[in-house]
Amino acid sequence: MNAELIFVGTELLLGNITNTNGVFLAQELANLGMPCYYQTIVGDNEERLSATIKQAVERSEVVILCGGLGPTEDDLTKETAAAVCGRKLVMDETVRAGIEEYLTTHGYKITENNFKQALMPEGATVVPNANGTAPGVIIETETSRVILLPGPPGEMIPMFKEHIRTYLDKLTPGTIVSQMVKVCGIGESLAETMAKDLIDGQKNPTIATYAKTGEVHFRVTAMAENEKEGLKLIKPVVKELKVRFGANIYSTDADTTLEKAVVDLLKENDLTVTTAESCTGGMLASRIVGIPGASDMFKEGVVTYSNKAKRKYLGVRKSTIVKYGAVSEQTAREMAKGGCDTTKSDACVGITGIAGPDGGTPEKPVGLVYIGVCVCGNTLVKEYRFSGNRTTIREAATSAALIQLRECLLSYFSEVTFGKDKKKK
Amino acid sequence: MNAELIFVGTELLLGNITNTNGVFLAQELANLGMPCYYQTIVGDNEERLSATIKQAVERSEVVILCGGLGPTEDDLTKETAAAVCGRKLVMDETVRAGIEEYLTTHGYKITENNFKQALMPEGATVVPNANGTAPGVIIETETSRVILLPGPPGEMIPMFKEHIRTYLDKLTPGTIVSQMVKVCGIGESLAETMAKDLIDGQKNPTIATYAKTGEVHFRVTAMAENEKEGLKLIKPVVKELKVRFGANIYSTDADTTLEKAVVDLLKENDLTVTTAESCTGGMLASRIVGIPGASDMFKEGVVTYSNKAKRKYLGVRKSTIVKYGAVSEQTAREMAKGGCDTTKSDACVGITGIAGPDGGTPEKPVGLVYIGVCVCGNTLVKEYRFSGNRTTIREAATSAALIQLRECLLSYFSEVTFGKDKKKK
Repeated sequence: MNAELIFVGTELLLGNITNTNGVFLAQELANLGMPCYYQTIVGDNEERLSATIKQAVERSEVVILCGGLGPTEDDLTKETAAAVCGRKLVMDETVRAGIEEYLTTHGYKITENNFKQALMPEGATVVPNANGTAPGVIIETETSRVILLPGPPGEMIPMFKEHIRTYLDKLTPGTIVSQMVKVCGIGESLAETMAKDLIDGQKNPTIATYAKTGEVHFRVTAMAENEKEGLKLIKPVVKELKVRFGANIYSTDADTTLEKAVVDLLKENDLTVTTAESCTGGMLASRIVGIPGASDMFKEGVVTYSNKAKRKYLGVRKSTIVKYGAVSEQTAREMAKGGCDTTKSDACVGITGIAGPDGGTPEKPVGLVYIGVCVCGNTLVKEYRFSGNRTTIREAATSAALIQLRECLLSYFSEVTFGKDKKKK
Repeated sequence: MNAELIFVGTELLLGNITNTNGVFLAQELANLGMPCYYQTIVGDNEERLSATIKQAVERSEVVILCGGLGPTEDDLTKETAAAVCGRKLVMDETVRAGIEEYLTTHGYKITENNFKQALMPEGATVVPNANGTAPGVIIETETSRVILLPGPPGEMIPMFKEHIRTYLDKLTPGTIVSQMVKVCGIGESLAETMAKDLIDGQKNPTIATYAKTGEVHFRVTAMAENEKEGLKLIKPVVKELKVRFGANIYSTDADTTLEKAVVDLLKENDLTVTTAESCTGGMLASRIVGIPGASDMFKEGVVTYSNKAKRKYLGVRKSTIVKYGAVSEQTAREMAKGGCDTTKSDACVGITGIAGPDGGTPEKPVGLVYIGVCVCGNTLVKEYRFSGNRTTIREAATSAALIQLRECLLSYFSEVTFGKDKKKK
C-alpha cells in the first residue's frame, strides 16, 4: 500500500519555514513499511490544491495532507479534499462543543470563524486534536484513504503518534517492528562498511542508516504477522550489530540522545562533571544542560576563551601556553585536570582548538582541536582534525567531546575494548 | 514567469535528511519575484521522475531540479531530463578534463563512473561547479527552461549564487531590488500589526515577513526597470519601517545575525562582555563565540548551574538566594553585577530561570526567566515568561538576553527610545 504526502501552505512555497513535518512523516511511513513515492508542497490555492489531491488519490492508496485546517479564509484543505472525494461538509456538534471548550479554557475569544473548523466531510472519521482546535480528518473512499492533519508540528506530531500511526499500521499487512541501534565514535563510511553485508543482504528485516555529527544510527525494521514474530526476525540482526559495534553503541532507544546517554552514565555512577571550553564556547555545557535533571551531575562550567581565563579558572600554566600554544595537547590536558581540581568535580572535559575562519597556520590549521578528558585523576587527550566551517567544526568538536567523555567513563569503570577509527574523525 | 522545484533523492523521501535546499531555493525565487506554485520530492526512479518532469515542463516555464547528478547508477536526473526534452547525451571534453583535474588535485582516485558526469544533453549550457565534479545544466526548450543542480548544499548554493541567480534574473522582466530590515525585541504579531498597512497596501515593493525566535525580518522587494528605479521604490518603505521600528532594528544587512550585531556593537565601542548562565547553560556564550573574532570582546564566561557556583564565580550572596530564590530578580541582578566585578568585564549578562519540564511551582512556573544585564555599572533586570518545551524556552531566553544586552548598550551610549512589547515576550 503506497502513501503520498502533500503539504499545504504558501509560507512553505516562499521558504518562510522549513518543512520539518516532511521529515517526521517520511520517517514514520518508512518505519511503518509503507512506501512513499512523492512529497508535494502546494500553496493555499483551491485550483492547484484540488489538482494535486486528484492526482494523488489516483496514484496512491493513502494520501496524507498536512496544513490548511485553520479557521481563516486561506485554509482550504478540508473543503478541497471533501470536494475531490465527493463529500458535503456538515456541522459536527461534538467537534463544535470541543472547540468552544478548548478556546474558553485557554482564554481565547471565540469568533464565528472558529466554527468553520467544526464542519466535517460527511461520513469522515474525526481525529481528536489535544493541542489545538483543528481536528484531524480521515476520509475513506473505495480506492483510497485521505488523511488531513493540522500544520503546526506541536499539534500534528502528537496526533500522528496517538491516532494515525495505529490507523496506518492496521492498513499494512502484518505488523512492523523496529529497533534502533545508535553508534558513536565511528565515522559514517566505516560504520556503513562494517554493516554493509547486513544492509545489502537482507530484505526482512531491513536496515536503514541515519548519519549525524559523530554518530550513525541503524534502524532495523521487520514486517511480520505479529509482534512476537517481528521481534524474532529483528533479534539476530540487532545482536550481530551489537557484536560488531560493541561499546560504540550508546543506546538502542529511539529517544535517547548521545548527551542523554552520557548524563545517565554519570548519574548512575554518582559522578559530577564540569566543562572547560575554548573554541566550542559553551556548546558542550549547553548540550548537557539540555537534558532535564542535568543539575544532579553538572554544577558549573567555564568558557575560557582567552589564555588568561584558562590560567585563572583552570590553573593552566603560563609556561605551558607559551611553550606549546593555547591549542595543544599539553594545554588540553591541563584544562581537563585543572577543571577537576578547581571545581572538585569527578570529571572534566577541556576543549581547545581553531574553529576558523582565521587563526590557522600550516602547523596548526583550522579544524585542529585537542580534547582532554579527566576522570577521577586519569586524563586522556586526543587530537582531532575536523573540516567544514566555524559552526560545523564547533559542532563536531562538541560531539567528539561527549564521545570521548563516554569512552573515558567506560574505560574507568571496566576494561572495555573500543572499535576502530578513534584517533581521527 | 512561473518556476517549479523538483528535488530528487530517495533519502529525502525516507526522511533521512531535511530538505534545506528547498528553503534556500524557495527564498531565492521569492526574492527574484518569480512565483513558484509547486515543490515536489521524488525518488531515484526513472519512471516517476520522468512523469514528474513532464508534468512540470507543461505547467511551469522554469523547472529547477536538484539532486541526482552524481556518478553512480542511481543518479538519473540528467539522463531523464534530457530524455523528456528530447536531447541526446554527448561527451563534453572540457567538462571531462575539468573532472579529471578536480579529482586529481583533491587526491581522489578516478573511476570510469566519474566520466558519466561529463555527458551533457546536446545544446545545453554547462554551469561550472567550483566545489564538486557535477556541473549544473541548463536545457532551454521552446516553452521552458530546465535547470539541473547538484544536491549537496555546499555545491548547489555557491553555484546558484554565482550563475543561476543572474540567469533567472534576466528571465524576469526588469530588475529585482530588495532590502532586509531586521527587527528584534518586538513580538511577531505586534510587529506585523505595526506594519500591516504597509504590507497590505503595496504591490511594488512587496514586504515579506520572516519570524524567528525573538526576531522579525522584513524583506522589501521591488521590481523595476533598473537598479536605480528599484532603489527609488524601496527607499520610502524602508524609511517608513525605520521610523516605525526605530532602535529595534538591529541590521539592514541580510547576512548579519543578532549576535553579530551585538558583537559588532561591543567591538566598535571597545567593550568586553562576559556571560553568567544558569538555565541557558552556555547557549548564550556559544552564540557569541560563533561569531569570528569574538575573542576581541569575549574573554570568558561561566555556567553557574548550581547555587554554589553562583556564589563562587559571581559573588551572589547566600542570603539573596535563600530569601528570594535562585530564580529571582535579585539573583539575576547580582549575577550580572558580580560577573562584571569578578571578570573585570565592561558588561555581563546573567540568566536564571526554570526551563522545565520539572521545577515549576504556581508562583514560579516553567518558563519564568530573569535576565540581568550590567553595562559599566548600570544594571537592568527584566522578567520574562516563555512558553514551550525545555529547548524552546532556553532558546527564547538566549535571544532575549542578546536583545536586552543590545538595548542596555544603546541606552548606555545615548538616550534611545525603545518600542513597545519590551517587558514580556
